[in-house]
Amino acid sequence: MEALGKDVVGLTVSAPVPVPLKGEGCAEEEVGVVEAKGERGGGAKGTLRSEGSGEVAVEGLRTQVSPYQALPTSSKIVRNLAEAQPVMVFKNEEERKKAVSKVIKDYAALLKQRTATHMGYPYNLAFEYGDLDCLLKYCINNLGDPWIESNYGVHSRQFELGVLNWFAQLWEVDQKEYWGYITNCGTEGNLHGILVGRENLPDGILYSSEESHYSVFKAASMYRMDYRKVSSLATGEMDCEHLKTLLEENKDKPAIVNVNIGTTVKGAIDDLDRVIEILYDVGYTEERFYIHCDGALFGMMIPFIKEAPFVTFKKPIGSVSVSGHKFMGCPTPCGLVITRSKYIDALSDDIEYLNSRDATIMGSRNGHAAIYMWYTLTMKGYEGFTEDVKKCLKNAHYLHSLLFSKGIRTMLNERSSTVVFEKPNCGEFIRKWQLACQADIAHVVVMPNITKEKIDQFVGELMESRARA
Amino acid sequence: MEALGKDVVGLTVSAPVPVPLKGEGCAEEEVGVVEAKGERGGGAKGTLRSEGSGEVAVEGLRTQVSPYQALPTSSKIVRNLAEAQPVMVFKNEEERKKAVSKVIKDYAALLKQRTATHMGYPYNLAFEYGDLDCLLKYCINNLGDPWIESNYGVHSRQFELGVLNWFAQLWEVDQKEYWGYITNCGTEGNLHGILVGRENLPDGILYSSEESHYSVFKAASMYRMDYRKVSSLATGEMDCEHLKTLLEENKDKPAIVNVNIGTTVKGAIDDLDRVIEILYDVGYTEERFYIHCDGALFGMMIPFIKEAPFVTFKKPIGSVSVSGHKFMGCPTPCGLVITRSKYIDALSDDIEYLNSRDATIMGSRNGHAAIYMWYTLTMKGYEGFTEDVKKCLKNAHYLHSLLFSKGIRTMLNERSSTVVFEKPNCGEFIRKWQLACQADIAHVVVMPNITKEKIDQFVGELMESRARA
Repeated sequence: MEALGKDVVGLTVSAPVPVPLKGEGCAEEEVGVVEAKGERGGGAKGTLRSEGSGEVAVEGLRTQVSPYQALPTSSKIVRNLAEAQPVMVFKNEEERKKAVSKVIKDYAALLKQRTATHMGYPYNLAFEYGDLDCLLKYCINNLGDPWIESNYGVHSRQFELGVLNWFAQLWEVDQKEYWGYITNCGTEGNLHGILVGRENLPDGILYSSEESHYSVFKAASMYRMDYRKVSSLATGEMDCEHLKTLLEENKDKPAIVNVNIGTTVKGAIDDLDRVIEILYDVGYTEERFYIHCDGALFGMMIPFIKEAPFVTFKKPIGSVSVSGHKFMGCPTPCGLVITRSKYIDALSDDIEYLNSRDATIMGSRNGHAAIYMWYTLTMKGYEGFTEDVKKCLKNAHYLHSLLFSKGIRTMLNERSSTVVFEKPNCGEFIRKWQLACQADIAHVVVMPNITKEKIDQFVGELMESRARA
Repeated sequence: MEALGKDVVGLTVSAPVPVPLKGEGCAEEEVGVVEAKGERGGGAKGTLRSEGSGEVAVEGLRTQVSPYQALPTSSKIVRNLAEAQPVMVFKNEEERKKAVSKVIKDYAALLKQRTATHMGYPYNLAFEYGDLDCLLKYCINNLGDPWIESNYGVHSRQFELGVLNWFAQLWEVDQKEYWGYITNCGTEGNLHGILVGRENLPDGILYSSEESHYSVFKAASMYRMDYRKVSSLATGEMDCEHLKTLLEENKDKPAIVNVNIGTTVKGAIDDLDRVIEILYDVGYTEERFYIHCDGALFGMMIPFIKEAPFVTFKKPIGSVSVSGHKFMGCPTPCGLVITRSKYIDALSDDIEYLNSRDATIMGSRNGHAAIYMWYTLTMKGYEGFTEDVKKCLKNAHYLHSLLFSKGIRTMLNERSSTVVFEKPNCGEFIRKWQLACQADIAHVVVMPNITKEKIDQFVGELMESRARA
């Protein structure tokens, strides 16, 4: 793997808590105003604490739902404004075909346009699966456990196994010692990892930072698990000192820790090594903790950054999950989760209802997803992904500098392509560029389809929208 | 809707518990021998009880996993024999493209062949989505709640809403009073329905028949719910008398009842009206019970059978789920679930971690699935589905008669297209026709792609394989 240039790895936090400029923008909706409450310690990484950052200011707002996958937002719940496309009824076959064709054609044009001006979500929209069109004729279903023979023949298990083996090698776990499967999305990976943790440590408490993906605490609710929410630093990273305090308070109970390999909003990477160190310090042995790594986005990026902290099964982790439609790029949401075989054996034994092995969350599973992932891994290879990561980090740096130079508060974590900045006031601008917002901040996740030219256009339009206000 | 001919709706159970003929077939694996333990009452429907049918004989076997979506089977756990298709590494771009092209071409040929000789699973493999090839270029993601505006623009919510409204009308619930979403598969629908039940009745006990889909009891395990397994009749239908006994024993606790609209193996329909009657009889009021209807396969078929029992929200049910890749036919697994808005409101309030509405199980959701479903509903219409159902029931009747005439024990429930028969002894035959087997029985689920000609070929080869043994 080629080392990355200095210019893309030395980024630091320039403005830990972005604050919106008051009275600017074509305010279509109220924007919460949050101010930084000061530092705790110093330095660029992991020391600025978002001390209850905005808890008071946004308290009322926290009861609202956000457009960004149910994260709290500062705007009101907006009921879906899209008109339903009704199922149409026809008497005449020709009319039917004509009308349906038109709907699809118009819709494809809309998708093309929206794809062209997308910046907000961590989805790589630059992919090409034309070769695979011919597979759309088949109902490809990898139902059940990938490791158990199924009689349903129209499956893609061979591709699934190829992909799983590739990731097992990436994360350094022997083929005989891992188990995994291709999931429907990042949420399924987290639901699985945490369930495996709970089944192995039934009275374990779940620990995860407040900036974790919402599916982590959803899992706790679904699974009726006790949990503790760990504070985050201003960077978005887990506050390990707070984790230590919580572990000490509950050391009679096993610990299930979710470690974020890239938080959803700020792209911060929790310090896995420090988490492990703390667990040992507090007196936990390996039998009494389980670590799940949520690597939805960065799980697929950091292996290609030389200086980045390394996720590996040589460390005492239990599972890692990653999304397929994020950095890799894929027409349908998908992902994968890998865990140690020994944990799955425990899981299967516990399902007394079945008296059989039923180790996946879903039953029927998308077989096309396995082929998309296999195809991309084969077509790009290590070199391709290394190039893509390099380009994204470079462009993220460029966007960050450009925003900064224009006087817009912005933040970029080290080894991250998630550029955080103050939420634009103009609703129309937010919608056009499909920005994911949380409270008073927005972000752009720089993916391979986001070029320098697109960044220039984006920042240009942002400045225009501010000038208009 | 057109009424179906007498010939397709008057089928009765001809041999309630299929017993394999001993000493026949090219036995590649041991086949469990189960004998019927006699009747309890009489008549064709709902009265023959599979009194612990084979519990002793198959006890050891029940600890094995089956190829049929983790149902217990009579054969050993077979580790996946398929070779992994490794992610390939190339130095030369031309070589890479050539090799990948060959892999995909060979794989497409394999899929074609396997699709042609598929009989066992309830998947309609006769579909045509050629018009939608152009959408494979886009990452279509309906992340989160379909009713909450998302900033991610590359979605298909308008199609999702169209499909949901269609089903709401089918199941007679007012647009303002329902909530639902398009799921990844039947399991997600059941996980959702049962979770909604639990969140509304937190100390409720889950009741479901022993022939329910395995995801129902998986839900109980995941959600840490108390549950009772209700006995089944020989037909596969829930034994309502046993349900009554269990409810009386536990009437201090609310009841969450899963009603099967078509069981997985025998295609039996639980008696929804009788279940409701029993709940009232035992003293339950509507506030103290929740009914989820698992209509994975038949939820999409019985609305088109005039004499069939009717699933409707005019009855006090909580939710219904159905699969999209089963009777409708779809390249990827999918489905949908519909519930009453009032139940979702309760669910959302309960998720205190989020302080926001996060009502779907998955986060990112397959946007293509919504378009496939919309497309099929529009292209076929009521008439098309009525025709399809008619054809399937007719062909199921034909297969059942043919097997019976050849001296093979077989069973076909009323208004079902699932033909159950003794499990063939020849492993090669089972694999070729991709039969789903449980213990000593196999089934063919007659879907629109299974023609009379294919049935003739199938029975012909079955008889040959028996003669060879």
